[in-house]
This record gives sequence, structure tokens and C-alpha cells, in this order.
Amino acid sequence: MHTLQTTIIDKVNSPADVKTLNLVEMEQLAGEIRSLVLNKVSQVSGHVGPNLGVAELTIAFHHVFDSPKDKIVWDVSHQSYPHKILTGRKHGFVDKENFHSVTGYTSQYESEHDFFTVGHTSTSISLAVGMAKARDLKKETGNVVALIGDGSLSGGLAFEGLNNAAELGSNLIIIVNDNEMSIDENFGGLYRSLAELRATNGEAANNPFRALGFDYRYLEEGNDLAKMIETFQSIKDIDHPIVLHVHTEKGHGYEKATQEKTNYHWRSPFNLETGESLGSAGGESYNSIIMDYLIKKVDEDEMKLAAINAAIPGMFGLKAFQAAHPEHYFDVGIAEGHSITFAAGLASQGVKPVVFHSSTFLQRAYDQLSHDLAINELPAVLIISGGKISSGAVTHNGLFDIPLIKSIPNFNYLAPTSKEELLAMLDWALQQEKGPIAIRLPNGPVVSRENTLADFQSPTYEIIRKGKKVAVLALSSFLSLGERVAEQMKAETGEDITVINPRSITEVDADTLKELEATHDLVVTLEDGSLAGGFGEQIASFYGASAVKVLNFGAKKEFTDNVPLETLYEQFHLTPELIVKDMLEALA
Amino acid sequence: MHTLQTTIIDKVNSPADVKTLNLVEMEQLAGEIRSLVLNKVSQVSGHVGPNLGVAELTIAFHHVFDSPKDKIVWDVSHQSYPHKILTGRKHGFVDKENFHSVTGYTSQYESEHDFFTVGHTSTSISLAVGMAKARDLKKETGNVVALIGDGSLSGGLAFEGLNNAAELGSNLIIIVNDNEMSIDENFGGLYRSLAELRATNGEAANNPFRALGFDYRYLEEGNDLAKMIETFQSIKDIDHPIVLHVHTEKGHGYEKATQEKTNYHWRSPFNLETGESLGSAGGESYNSIIMDYLIKKVDEDEMKLAAINAAIPGMFGLKAFQAAHPEHYFDVGIAEGHSITFAAGLASQGVKPVVFHSSTFLQRAYDQLSHDLAINELPAVLIISGGKISSGAVTHNGLFDIPLIKSIPNFNYLAPTSKEELLAMLDWALQQEKGPIAIRLPNGPVVSRENTLADFQSPTYEIIRKGKKVAVLALSSFLSLGERVAEQMKAETGEDITVINPRSITEVDADTLKELEATHDLVVTLEDGSLAGGFGEQIASFYGASAVKVLNFGAKKEFTDNVPLETLYEQFHLTPELIVKDMLEALA
Repeated sequence: MHTLQTTIIDKVNSPADVKTLNLVEMEQLAGEIRSLVLNKVSQVSGHVGPNLGVAELTIAFHHVFDSPKDKIVWDVSHQSYPHKILTGRKHGFVDKENFHSVTGYTSQYESEHDFFTVGHTSTSISLAVGMAKARDLKKETGNVVALIGDGSLSGGLAFEGLNNAAELGSNLIIIVNDNEMSIDENFGGLYRSLAELRATNGEAANNPFRALGFDYRYLEEGNDLAKMIETFQSIKDIDHPIVLHVHTEKGHGYEKATQEKTNYHWRSPFNLETGESLGSAGGESYNSIIMDYLIKKVDEDEMKLAAINAAIPGMFGLKAFQAAHPEHYFDVGIAEGHSITFAAGLASQGVKPVVFHSSTFLQRAYDQLSHDLAINELPAVLIISGGKISSGAVTHNGLFDIPLIKSIPNFNYLAPTSKEELLAMLDWALQQEKGPIAIRLPNGPVVSRENTLADFQSPTYEIIRKGKKVAVLALSSFLSLGERVAEQMKAETGEDITVINPRSITEVDADTLKELEATHDLVVTLEDGSLAGGFGEQIASFYGASAVKVLNFGAKKEFTDNVPLETLYEQFHLTPELIVKDMLEALA
Repeated sequence: MHTLQTTIIDKVNSPADVKTLNLVEMEQLAGEIRSLVLNKVSQVSGHVGPNLGVAELTIAFHHVFDSPKDKIVWDVSHQSYPHKILTGRKHGFVDKENFHSVTGYTSQYESEHDFFTVGHTSTSISLAVGMAKARDLKKETGNVVALIGDGSLSGGLAFEGLNNAAELGSNLIIIVNDNEMSIDENFGGLYRSLAELRATNGEAANNPFRALGFDYRYLEEGNDLAKMIETFQSIKDIDHPIVLHVHTEKGHGYEKATQEKTNYHWRSPFNLETGESLGSAGGESYNSIIMDYLIKKVDEDEMKLAAINAAIPGMFGLKAFQAAHPEHYFDVGIAEGHSITFAAGLASQGVKPVVFHSSTFLQRAYDQLSHDLAINELPAVLIISGGKISSGAVTHNGLFDIPLIKSIPNFNYLAPTSKEELLAMLDWALQQEKGPIAIRLPNGPVVSRENTLADFQSPTYEIIRKGKKVAVLALSSFLSLGERVAEQMKAETGEDITVINPRSITEVDADTLKELEATHDLVVTLEDGSLAGGFGEQIASFYGASAVKVLNFGAKKEFTDNVPLETLYEQFHLTPELIVKDMLEALA
């Protein structure tokens, strides 16, 4: 491990200390910040390139402005590590035992220099407009600054914010941090203009910001401290909205990160010298299974297929598909809403879209799922990843995809439990024409289990174990939990209970549910997501007027931030022991 | 009533017939189309200004292009009446008995010249991109055209679509129909640029479309048939994406509609000569009650309040507030997502936002409600209107606000039943600081009933009638239905049942629900919205392990388009007779 050089950082406990440093000291500070970032990320994972790229910009900001009277809102805030280091939270980057004490995104609960808990893109401008307007209504003073990466600019919310911000009539500084990258490369007409602006030192006629009514300035050398400071000094306390377009280098200061920009956006633990991941990777995954299938499908079939994602191909292994069939691959940039409506347009003309989304970001496309796909009964296929109870950041939890999609008529949400079932559902979904289908990817290692169904329009519930008294409906990857519940029940009471794989989250197999009434007193549901508006409540309502009792297990309706999974499972009674305990209490 | 002149229209049964007309005949056709539009709308309501404004453009389109090989997608499609008249659906505008046979928005089920059922703004570009890409993948030919009004351009989805469209590399024609109006005036920096372009015949340097990488053309005389035809001819079959910016006059051809553009966006039935509404208006409404309260609040209180809406102030009577307190009034344009995140920014700095939304358009802001307001526990107040089962257009049904908001942690969704309760809830919501509150406006005429609670953080359920055996939990305006159910039960069985006003959709009064178990065998829930993921399912889950039976009444999870309310209530068993019938069956 590197010996961390912290000579300057040792003197910096708040932004006020940054103001006392001279240029040479600040240059050294930038290097030390980079070491701290790499120190933490290489050991416990985190965002690399984005943070290395803004070290100078952040130092310059705190040197010139007066946080927290001057307020800065970081878009997504995955690039806020230098800001955190300079605002009293360096301890979270030095020693491993303190890493967990500082989160990977801004948090108003950590520091007065942070204003929001964030994690989704494109919100910073709208938030900043609100803060600036509040300042004006209260007749206060101070700068309000938003920093947004060029990648996040493709999000519709950013545009809505820009449009509104242009009319503010008072101080608002929007820093567009242009490092020429989203997570992957950028896509869209906007980026051609950004490239022209970079190539012409901001002079190009095609200026999307001026075109929206903004004052505008360009700085090429965003990693040059002296120039950043000078630029900030020239716009501090400006009396109207301005867009400051700054060119920085993603990963600046760590060669591997500048050469492999996509890889170093975010890294799991890795060896600092060699860049190699410390965990194991590769092997079969649900992603690779889908990619192999789709690549083959386009090879062999006449079907016109389109694989679509919104700026996160790496989450799905989609680069493999892109390499094999580039004409059928689409990255619309950070624009989840458009990815769905674009899919609707394709499907209306006989092309079959397969749209890949994470549960958490899909939240941005609710109206498009409903208004564009479902009302029009268009046969698109959605692949949803990351839907689960998790120990991750609160803004990235995939807890709500089940209630969300389940609320939309005409949407069939399938929940495979194995690779065979996943492929069968995907295969069926691609050839059916009735309407939109979503498939929730199972979590955990790949499960192999025989699949016995081919048509999933109104799939019957699959009886895994036939028993009596209690029937456990276990969705998706929780099927194994359901089996362990059955084993626990057997061990405690000698009784054999029923375990069922529902296959579909939305299509209720009323016949099977009615049959269960004859020989079962209790139906238990297990879902890896938020219970409110979810699968289990629907089953409880189904049995509402019957004598059958129902117990629903899943996540309580709450936001959790970096809470260990075991703790959450305990709280939610999502262990075989606790489930059986509740079952026996209900049966008593 | 006017005698309709249909000399030319009588000869036009499809777009092919439009191609045979000369200029004089087409001018006359435009006038006849206007008469038909006014004929229908004045009798049964509909959109006026938008349709009158595009009569020439639509005739020119069908004269030059070859629908349906050339495909046109109308944004929102409230301006598609002339298009419908020319594509075999004129019967829906001539005789009153046929008015219902043609809907107010495009519909692929009506005609091969329509491709989507639409009603929300800003989707046309994304849809068109999908259709164009499908054409290219299938190696077919034909023009793909999107028509979007300037008002709808402020929506983030439109921007996402534009950004992606610019890279298409093949034929795509985006007509920006600039009539200088949203429903009300336009708001945002974009509109300054559109004004500059109008003032300079499209030559201004600040061109948002060129700035996004588009080829661009401007036509000032969008109501001049000859010029529209010439322009269309010049871009037909173009081989790359182009934005055609056309200036039209909203309401063109009917003087009142051009003089009162906001009023004539949409009209309920009115007298063609005088312009007067035929129905009665005025009197107290929940809107006027809220407006009076808020105006007074800003007058008297030190509280800094911000009343926010996204382009539909008329739906809430907000112009009254704007007139009284213009500094506290905000219209962000058609930008629902931004309205919420903007509110989050304001609330973080101590200003109290009150954001007004219709149930159906709120669907566009799900992630902002969750990620920006709820995760950050920011004290904003949402007023939701139009949440109900309705006989309206499928794309405007307010069925899903309960499942949507209810799925989000930290969001308290209150359901007042009277004006006293509404004011008490609003008053409490404005002074609390714990997090976001939403208030669902009751439907129907104003109800006056004593309110007995001041704090709605965890409100107890209000016992309206104390009885036995059955407890009816009746949300919001369905409280009166609940009372009629109790009366029906009394009439049929002599029994007195319990009726409860739950007050909150999200905060479950567990104590009251447990107490009911002792003396009640059945709990019935009534909600004016979709059941899936709604209030009732949550109650069914609560009682899952108890002996109490539960019946949930509300809308089945389906989309309905212009179905009469009585029919829907029958289907959903939402009448006192049918509810009691189901109750007695469950109790048997």
C-alpha cells in the first residue's frame, strides 16, 4: 500500500483553511487528495475518474467561495470526494476503519457544506434554482452553484432546470464539468455542440446554453489550479445566471484512469500498482446468458431486435452485444424516459425493443411505461436489474420496481428463478405481440433448474413442494429462502408445507390460489422489495373475504442508507427462523 | 346554430382527395374545417385554439405527404381534429349523434393514419425517432414527421428526444408549431430564443435547434396555405433530421379564440355567437377555498410560501393567487419533474412550496417525489387534483396517484372529505417540518362538515357512524358512498354498521384497526382510484393474519377510454346495492 502523503491535508479541516494556502501548497493538496481517493477506492470500491478529475476545481471553489454561505450542489455527487475531504471529512478517506463513516454521495446529515442526499443524475440545476429563489425571497445573499457533468446533461430534468434557470434574474452559477464522458461515451446532438465549443475555446456559434438564454463562459484548462481560481474569482457574486463550461480530464493524475475512462468510472477493490481487480470476476452470469441469447437471436432470426439502454451498458454486459450487432444496439444517453418512448416508437413499427434498466433509475420513466407502452399495448420487453433489498446507498436502492410496474395495467411483470426460466420467459416475451413485458432479473449466483412452461401470458403458479397447512409464494431469488423456510418448518414441527414459484408478479393465478384454500390455513408471500403496493398485498386482498390467513414478508416501507443486509433481513423477519416463528404465531 | 358549409369536405374522404384540390378549394376547406371544429366543441366541449391554428398546416401536410406511408405523430394530439376530419372521420364533427364516435386525441384503433393513443405532452419526438429507426432497420422508406407545440418543448422528454434525434442520420421532420402559447403563456429561457427566431425570420444566432445539431428552417406564415405547401414540398423526403419551425396563430379564424387564447385552449360547451359558457360556473369550489386561504396566508404570515404549477394554473384557479402575490407564484412551464425538484431546493432553504398537480401529469415526476423530496424529508406540500375514476380520455385518467404516492417512504398522503378538513390539513401541512405532505382534493361539490383534528402526522381514523359487524373505511369523496352503504345495509338488514373516514391514505391507524377486530367480522374499503397497490390492499395486508375479512372496492386495474361513469361503477360494484350484496355474501 502507498504511504499517504498528507502534509497539506493535515492543515485543512475546513474550507477556511483552503483560503490560507498558496498556489504551490494547493497543487500539492490536489495530489494528496488524489492519493486519498485512490487509497479508499482501491480498498473498498467507489468512483475514481470523476473524483480525480475535479480535484483542482474543488480546491479552487473552496479557495474562492465561502461555503456554506455560498452553496454548491453536486449533480449525482459521486464526484464529491474532494469536497468532502476539504470540508471536515478527510478521516473517511485515510484509515480503513473510518471509511464507512463518510458516504459516497453528499449528505446534509454529514456536513453543513452538503445540502441534499443525491444519487440520480440531472437534479442539481433544479435544486439550485430552488435554493437561489429561496435566497431571493428571503432577501439574503450568497452564491448558489450547481456542478453537473456533461453526461448528466442529457437528462430531461436537467433541461427543464436550465430552461427555468435562465429566467431567474439573480445569481446562479451552473458549472458544466465537461470531461467528454458519461459512464461510457456520450450520445446525442448536444455532445457535438459541446465538442465544437471545446474545439473553439467556447466561441462556436452553436451554443446550447446561449441558445437557452444564458450568459456563458468557457475554460479549457479545468485541471489548472491558477486558471480555475482566476475564473471563479471573475464570476463570484455575479448578479445573473451563468453557465461556466469547464473542460477537465476524467481520471486526471492517475494514468490508468485516464487511459481506461470507462473502467475507472467506478471500481470495486483493486491493486493500485497493477490496476487489477481484487475480487473474482467472470464466469456465467444472468447478464452473459442474456447477451449470448440475444446475439444468437439476431444472428439466426429474421426478427428485428433493438437492445436499448440509457448510459449504463456495463451493468448488463451490453458491450458484448454492441460488438456483435452494432446496428441493433442503442445507448440513448442518460435519458430513461426517452429510452422507453423510443422503444414504443420502434415497437409500433414491428421492431422488437429490449430495454435494459436498473430498478432505481427506471423510476424516472413511470409515465412513459404507462402512457406510451401500456396504454398503447406495445410489445416491448424490459429487463430490470438490481431489484432487491440492499446494503447500498439510499439513492440506489432497487426497492420500488415491483409496486411501480405492478400499478400499470397491461404490463406483465415476470420473475424468473433460474436461467432456464429466464430464457424461456425472454423467448416467449419476444414473440408475443399483446403488450409490454418486464422481466425482473434474479439476484445472486446463477441458478439452474428445469423450466416447464413456454407461454407466460397467464402463467400458472409452479408448485415446487406440495404440502399442507401453509403455502409459501416465493418470488424470484427468494425461492431459495422459501425452500429454507419449508426445511425449517419441517425441522421444527415435522410438517411439510407447500412452496410455490409464482412466475409472474402481476398475473394472479386465481385457480391455484382458490385450490389452496381447501388444504391450507395460511399463505405466506416472500418478495425482495418494498411491501407497500407490492406482490404480497395483492395476495392478501385476493384472500380478503376467505378464511385463509395471509402473511407478507419483504421490506418495510422505508429508506435505508448503507445498512448491512443481515441487519435489514433481521428487521424485516426475512430469515427462515423468523418467518417460521411468525407463521406459527399466525396459525395458533 | 350555424348551418355547416361542407361543400369541399363532402368531397374529402381520405388524404388522397386532398391532393386533388386546388388552392382556392383548400382555402375553403380550411374554413369548413374550422366550422366543423367549432360545431362540435361548442356543443360538447373540446380543444378550440390549437385546432383552429393548424387547419392550413394539416391540409398542406396531407396535400404534400402520403399518409400513412408517410407517418405523422401529433404531440398530445389535442390539435388533431383537422387531421381526423381529413382522414375519414369527419362524421365525428358534423352531427351531434356521432360526436362520441371520434375521440379527442389520436387513436390507432380509429384509423391507420394514427399511430398512438396520446394525451400527455412531449412524447412525439421520441416516438418519431423510434418509428424512423424502425423504418431504417427494416430498410423501408417514407417520411416520419412529428408535430410538437412550443409549449410542449419545455418538457424534459422532448429534450431527450431532440438530443437523440439529432444523431439519427436519416429522414425525420420535426415540426415545431410555434403559436407563442402553452395553455397559458410560456415560461423559460427557451422561449426568449423562440421569440428571437420569430423576430428574425429564423436567422437569430441563438438557435436551440441548431445548437443541438439540427438542420433548421423557419416559416413565419404558418396559416398561409400556399407557403405551407411550398415549404413542405421543399423538405419532403429529406435524408436527415430537420426542425421546421412554423409560426401559427392559436385560434386563427375565430376572433374570440385569437383574442382570448388561454380561455379558448379548451372550452366546455358554449354559445358560438357570444362565446358564453352554457354550463353554470362560479360559486365556491375547493380551488377557490384554497386560493382564498393561501392569499390570506401570504398577506398575514411571515412564512415564505411559493405556489408552483407546471403550465396548468387554470385547473386550480391559481391566476387569482398570481394576481394577489406575483412574487410567490411560479409556473415552470410543462416540466412536472422540475416543479418538484425546484420545490425541494426551495424547501431546503426554508421556503414552503405548495405544488399543484393533476393526478395524471404527476406520473411524470415519480422519481423527483421519491429521490428529491422524500429521501431528503423536505417539507413541501402537494395538492393533487383529478384523482378519481372517470369517464374521460384514457390518457387523462387520474387513477394511479394513490398507488404512486403510497409507494414512497416518508410521504404522508392526506384525503380530506370536506372544506373544513382540507383547510385544517393544509394549515397543518404548512407548519410541519418533518417531510413532504400530499393532499388529495375531494371530487364533486364542496362538502361542509365539522373537522375535529389539528395534527395529521399520524391521524386517527374518524368514526363517522359507530356500529358493528361491518366497518366501512371510505376515503375522501367516497365517504358519502360509505354513508349510503350504511343506509342500504340498514334498509336491507336492519343492522347498523360502522363508517370511518381514514383521513390519511398512507398513515395506518393500527390501534383503531385492531379495536375493530373485537366487534366486526368484515372491513370494507372504498377508494376512488385503482385498487392495485392502493389503500385497500394495504388494509387487507394489515388484517392478513386475523380473522377479520376484508373487501376492497375501487377501480379494477385497467385503462378505460370515455366509458360512462355509471358503467364503470356497475363494473366495479361501486354502488350501495352492489357493495351490500358483496358484503352479505362475504359474511355468509
